[in-house]
Amino acid sequence: MVPRYSRPDMVAIWTPEARFKIWFEIEAHATDALAELGVVPKEAAAAIWEKGAFEVDRIDEIERETKHDVIAFLTNVAEHVGPEARFMHQGMTSSDVLDTCLAVQLAKASDILIADLDALLDVLERRAREHKMTPTIGRSHGIHAEPVTFGLKLAQAHAEFARNRARLVAAREDVATCAISGAVGTFANIDPFVEEYVAGKLGLSVEPVSTQVIPRDRHAMFFATLGVIASSIERLATEVRHLQRTEVLEAEEFFSPGQKGSSAMPHKRNPVLTENLTGLARMVRGYVTPAMENVALWHERDISHSSVERYIGPDATITLDFALARLTGVMDKLVVYPERMLKNLNKMGGLVHSQRVLLALTQAGVSREDAYRLVQRNAMKVWDSDGALSLLELLKADPEVTLSNAELEDKFDLGYHLKHVDTIFARVFGAA
Amino acid sequence: MVPRYSRPDMVAIWTPEARFKIWFEIEAHATDALAELGVVPKEAAAAIWEKGAFEVDRIDEIERETKHDVIAFLTNVAEHVGPEARFMHQGMTSSDVLDTCLAVQLAKASDILIADLDALLDVLERRAREHKMTPTIGRSHGIHAEPVTFGLKLAQAHAEFARNRARLVAAREDVATCAISGAVGTFANIDPFVEEYVAGKLGLSVEPVSTQVIPRDRHAMFFATLGVIASSIERLATEVRHLQRTEVLEAEEFFSPGQKGSSAMPHKRNPVLTENLTGLARMVRGYVTPAMENVALWHERDISHSSVERYIGPDATITLDFALARLTGVMDKLVVYPERMLKNLNKMGGLVHSQRVLLALTQAGVSREDAYRLVQRNAMKVWDSDGALSLLELLKADPEVTLSNAELEDKFDLGYHLKHVDTIFARVFGAA
Amino acid sequence: MVPRYSRPDMVAIWTPEARFKIWFEIEAHATDALAELGVVPKEAAAAIWEKGAFEVDRIDEIERETKHDVIAFLTNVAEHVGPEARFMHQGMTSSDVLDTCLAVQLAKASDILIADLDALLDVLERRAREHKMTPTIGRSHGIHAEPVTFGLKLAQAHAEFARNRARLVAAREDVATCAISGAVGTFANIDPFVEEYVAGKLGLSVEPVSTQVIPRDRHAMFFATLGVIASSIERLATEVRHLQRTEVLEAEEFFSPGQKGSSAMPHKRNPVLTENLTGLARMVRGYVTPAMENVALWHERDISHSSVERYIGPDATITLDFALARLTGVMDKLVVYPERMLKNLNKMGGLVHSQRVLLALTQAGVSREDAYRLVQRNAMKVWDSDGALSLLELLKADPEVTLSNAELEDKFDLGYHLKHVDTIFARVFGAA
Amino acid sequence: MVPRYSRPDMVAIWTPEARFKIWFEIEAHATDALAELGVVPKEAAAAIWEKGAFEVDRIDEIERETKHDVIAFLTNVAEHVGPEARFMHQGMTSSDVLDTCLAVQLAKASDILIADLDALLDVLERRAREHKMTPTIGRSHGIHAEPVTFGLKLAQAHAEFARNRARLVAAREDVATCAISGAVGTFANIDPFVEEYVAGKLGLSVEPVSTQVIPRDRHAMFFATLGVIASSIERLATEVRHLQRTEVLEAEEFFSPGQKGSSAMPHKRNPVLTENLTGLARMVRGYVTPAMENVALWHERDISHSSVERYIGPDATITLDFALARLTGVMDKLVVYPERMLKNLNKMGGLVHSQRVLLALTQAGVSREDAYRLVQRNAMKVWDSDGALSLLELLKADPEVTLSNAELEDKFDLGYHLKHVDTIFARVFGAA
Repeated sequence: MVPRYSRPDMVAIWTPEARFKIWFEIEAHATDALAELGVVPKEAAAAIWEKGAFEVDRIDEIERETKHDVIAFLTNVAEHVGPEARFMHQGMTSSDVLDTCLAVQLAKASDILIADLDALLDVLERRAREHKMTPTIGRSHGIHAEPVTFGLKLAQAHAEFARNRARLVAAREDVATCAISGAVGTFANIDPFVEEYVAGKLGLSVEPVSTQVIPRDRHAMFFATLGVIASSIERLATEVRHLQRTEVLEAEEFFSPGQKGSSAMPHKRNPVLTENLTGLARMVRGYVTPAMENVALWHERDISHSSVERYIGPDATITLDFALARLTGVMDKLVVYPERMLKNLNKMGGLVHSQRVLLALTQAGVSREDAYRLVQRNAMKVWDSDGALSLLELLKADPEVTLSNAELEDKFDLGYHLKHVDTIFARVFGAA
Repeated sequence: MVPRYSRPDMVAIWTPEARFKIWFEIEAHATDALAELGVVPKEAAAAIWEKGAFEVDRIDEIERETKHDVIAFLTNVAEHVGPEARFMHQGMTSSDVLDTCLAVQLAKASDILIADLDALLDVLERRAREHKMTPTIGRSHGIHAEPVTFGLKLAQAHAEFARNRARLVAAREDVATCAISGAVGTFANIDPFVEEYVAGKLGLSVEPVSTQVIPRDRHAMFFATLGVIASSIERLATEVRHLQRTEVLEAEEFFSPGQKGSSAMPHKRNPVLTENLTGLARMVRGYVTPAMENVALWHERDISHSSVERYIGPDATITLDFALARLTGVMDKLVVYPERMLKNLNKMGGLVHSQRVLLALTQAGVSREDAYRLVQRNAMKVWDSDGALSLLELLKADPEVTLSNAELEDKFDLGYHLKHVDTIFARVFGAA
Repeated sequence: MVPRYSRPDMVAIWTPEARFKIWFEIEAHATDALAELGVVPKEAAAAIWEKGAFEVDRIDEIERETKHDVIAFLTNVAEHVGPEARFMHQGMTSSDVLDTCLAVQLAKASDILIADLDALLDVLERRAREHKMTPTIGRSHGIHAEPVTFGLKLAQAHAEFARNRARLVAAREDVATCAISGAVGTFANIDPFVEEYVAGKLGLSVEPVSTQVIPRDRHAMFFATLGVIASSIERLATEVRHLQRTEVLEAEEFFSPGQKGSSAMPHKRNPVLTENLTGLARMVRGYVTPAMENVALWHERDISHSSVERYIGPDATITLDFALARLTGVMDKLVVYPERMLKNLNKMGGLVHSQRVLLALTQAGVSREDAYRLVQRNAMKVWDSDGALSLLELLKADPEVTLSNAELEDKFDLGYHLKHVDTIFARVFGAA
Repeated sequence: MVPRYSRPDMVAIWTPEARFKIWFEIEAHATDALAELGVVPKEAAAAIWEKGAFEVDRIDEIERETKHDVIAFLTNVAEHVGPEARFMHQGMTSSDVLDTCLAVQLAKASDILIADLDALLDVLERRAREHKMTPTIGRSHGIHAEPVTFGLKLAQAHAEFARNRARLVAAREDVATCAISGAVGTFANIDPFVEEYVAGKLGLSVEPVSTQVIPRDRHAMFFATLGVIASSIERLATEVRHLQRTEVLEAEEFFSPGQKGSSAMPHKRNPVLTENLTGLARMVRGYVTPAMENVALWHERDISHSSVERYIGPDATITLDFALARLTGVMDKLVVYPERMLKNLNKMGGLVHSQRVLLALTQAGVSREDAYRLVQRNAMKVWDSDGALSLLELLKADPEVTLSNAELEDKFDLGYHLKHVDTIFARVFGAA
């Protein structure tokens, strides 16, 4: 966890205090269930809730001797509860506590991330509607293609993050399971009722079949989903970085008054937030493969997954939470320059309209190949002039181009390209 | 693609012929839609279906000059269709064809993979029911823990692959979209009706907002899902590899009569299929990160994703198809040795029953810590004797152990561990 | 292997013919060594060289029965050699052949890749010298910073690929080892002399300690090195992609006369080769993790590495070979526009000289903070004017700026930035 | 950074204090060099050393306003030094400080890791010599193959980690470079002498050509090397995990008296340290791809690498340091059971000697194929008897086996397999 790339709510999920608190709840709920079954005295279950407490430092101290964290925790709780503590953890195994706790933590982390996505989606929709009809050049291969609107770019991002939200909801469901099934998952020493009871109390579903541990394909899917979301963050961040390039400058990250772009070059305003997001996306993606390598535990379990999860549990969720919030901030305050967009759009001498001319020629009976050749030879002249020549004028002057001047002029209308923006917005945001 | 790790049906999806055939269908359906809109003559659309044809070699030849595959294809088709061919591809861009084709291919590949999973699930259920009550030792950390059944191991695998099936169905839905939206996704030169029409014909859903290309977060999610499935394959393969170890030998891959295990050591029967699956899983996982790196295309698109997909499209699906089929074969014919399982289970002098004694002691009023100490000191003697000593006898002889001989003997009952197998099977396979 | 991203010399290393030819040489040399030791008759060794032959189809046929490739090969060779063939492979194990063969293949592949790097380095040096003094704007964060020369960019690339060459030479050395040590590496049935002899004949070094297999940390290092080289390819490819952007257009991939940029937009010239290289780099990087996962084989060996290597052995080397050659072609024929570079450099109204003014102010006694503030407030005006205002004129007019007009003008000299180009070139290319 | 997987010396390299201290040294040495050049007053340089100081909290406070860490640092130092502070950082850019600092940190981290490897190599050599002649079964595919010694296993590990040491030394050299070349690497505002001077003072080499930043292929190579080392750790850890399996139990991690293996099963002694190492290896490998993705920075630099390095700089080095130390501890205290090794070796009824019989038969004139068949049919009987039958006795009784009883008995000699152990040890450890 890198403090500068973290936010307190997500960090709070991963503190020792928070973890032990969840452990305590699992143990206390389980003892309630055992009491309900008549396996342990109801007074013992009550005593645990009443007198139960723990101290992180004391647990650490005991763990240094026992080298076993759950035993250390139980010992410490027993110091508070007294003899009735022996009814805790009856028939359970450490992983019942650890894995169910991780499920609770990942579910809570998912809730924050889903809220992050909702906030981002709100901003994207607002800015998309704001710039619904702001024309800008669409670029493929970094080269001017045909006009789009800036709102369409944001609508695309909205659709992408809406998909990510749905994926995350599914991933949350995948990891939010409770296993209290004993040493090798057979319920030999604990009734399945306890698992159902605790699952209900914690808002988890029951793990159908566990083997001491909850199977790690669930977690692999979860972290893979975070990796996809991070990749979408990189995509939008890359878009902003491109738009802020000196020669393009169609949009800029908000630059606060006190901020300094460069220690050496006072004129600079750099897209540092989106560059930062690009790096953060690399990190979140980097956690995917370790999570997948965690799946093939030996037999009923080995503990190799545990160290991996101590890193990626916090690191992936904290980093992604920070990144989503940062991206939301960037998009919320993004400074957009519509006039510059229009200037760039027009700078290539009308080349962006070349396809319409091509189509018109074929519809007028010219073969596709000939039409292509005719348009390309004029387009190349414009291209080579760095936009100084006008495609429209060259086409008018080309004797082989059989369209009338009026027909040609009609093909250079910007509105033509924007006529279906409403359709696309309706698909993304629903009916206006 | 490595021929030895491929199967013909999946390979067939990725041949040039198959790809061009899908291209042709997209173009022909699109022309139908254009004809329906009145944009092109109905006769032209009919002519395309009627006279349309292509030759892979000829397309390659043209591409060598034009360096553009879709143009080469259209030129070749035009050679067959004649002048009416100029009505094909009206207002479309290459990516409309390429991306929609990839969607069709990935959907078809998904269908094969889903069928593979179904076959595997069938085998796993059959073998699980067969060995539902075959006792075997459960192992955590590679160390004997407590008894399970071999059927439970397979039920776990079944549950895991059932989850993978659901994930794959979702991933298929994610990639099975059709985009026919023109050069930068604005439908400037093509009516959205064409997209809806072609999508309907090909069994795809409509891409709500594309930017020349279908957004690559969809594909990233798809390949990530394959990576998770591969990791589950590795898990089950690793289980078999462990079970076949000389000292364990509880199960073995089927070894056909003519097969040779080693050129130098004639006695060897090696788990080569499952080792092979372990390697194949590494490969499929290796394709996940490139797929995620493909998401952040520049602006409305760049073509960096294309080369990646030429590798991983075929390689990931062909490899996973082969791996699933191989795993199904391994599990189908797996030679299981129940008597050896029982022998191994019993070899540790009853250590596997230690937890029950621990629980009985605490329930008889001994503190958890004392109970643990009492059991551990006897267990360690058994452990150090390599199973020569009997835990039961040592406990009977330990004066501090206050349980009666009858009570102790009761704790060493194997059936005790299997009483909830039915419950778990009902969760996994539904009611018997 | 994707045919369109492959070149014949590298492909030839990985054909079955080539592999079996190396196998034959290993076996024949080993038999020579055994004959020299007196273990087998000299006539047998001679007969193997003389009569030895194999047919790929026949080997495949035998393997289908034996399911063991080396046994199939030996059986086929024996069909040609006759009874003396029984002296082949004496005391050897399959991996002795397979792993030594892979070492030969990777060494050959390295030789091609090293030659590829040499060709690239030649081109980079030539183009660097050509543009040694071609001024262009240096950009950090995509934003204009200070002037550099285009030759400096290429000199940097040269230095990077020279490092990669050195790394590859080291990686080649790492993998070019010979192991002929028998079933578990103990030389129980074969004298270490055979290993030394064969190593000498094949130009390999001796593997100091093998365990049936050559340890896979060597291969992991090899493929990791390819991954680093691929990343450098991506870096230079990304530079070209940026330079070719419509708004920048300081350089362009060579666009051959017949080539079509877009099926829909005839004016387009896209950096498709460097975008392609970006994707290929992703693939080569994707092979690194599987290679690393191959290291932890079980005990003296398992065969999980083998399937991985059947993919990445050819795929990583063939792809990287193709990518290096493509990059060399791109850089060789790159169309450079010095006048456009100068135009871009000048477009920001002299902002690129801001740091010099900052330094001059501090040297004239202004505090760093005040100097920064003074320069920034004028720079921001220029920035906001999109280059219409001139920084020099604004500074002259700023009463707080205490430098004389002559002093200020001196700070806007382009030559000032290029005075150490010779120094850097001497570092990279040696003395002129 | 996960505290439980970290050691103080490595952690100390990555604290803010340590980083700012290196920054200070870079700036102060650079000012010395500038003074030597006469660019700034010698008194200023002296004053910086004399009065220079910083406070982490104060820097953080300033950075919150300026959003620029180096400017914040310089401002804080200036608060201590007074007006002469304006001579610091003359002509430098932030990256000159940041990248050179990272080089110092990675060099220091390398020194610790090299020392870690040396400690591990010492332990491996000691244990290898101790068990040089301890026979144990060699296993391929997890199946008994032929005898080796436990010392040979450790000698192999020694050779592997010796290679890793050499790789790390090379990787250290790769990253230990100093760049003080100004805003875009042209030395426009700073003489190359400063770079040489500071490099000399800090024990770094000079970066031949930088572009504001030190090129990231260097760092990619560094982290890739750590990934290879981690993979070797996984290999040795996996070996120990296998040896500790209940059915094998040839070696065990040291189990301290107070330690508890399982909260539920008091008899368990689990290989938790080596399982933990397996997980840590996954993490270190997970950092390789982000490091490679960092290479392709845009133009002269973007800052996307920075966030990645804030994670992986500390995380990869701290984790690897911890893992190497843990592995050294495990191997140092590993409890080895030679009698159990022998027992396992003998349990397969002499099957491990099958190859020798095979060779003897071929040398006695039997064709390879017949010999294989003869040995295999007897070996399979032994295999199926679970070691109850003796291969030697079966072969004696097989009428087709033409070797005499004495000849057969000679082939079942264990010493035969160990005769070249000295040779291998001499290769790995040098002459005794």
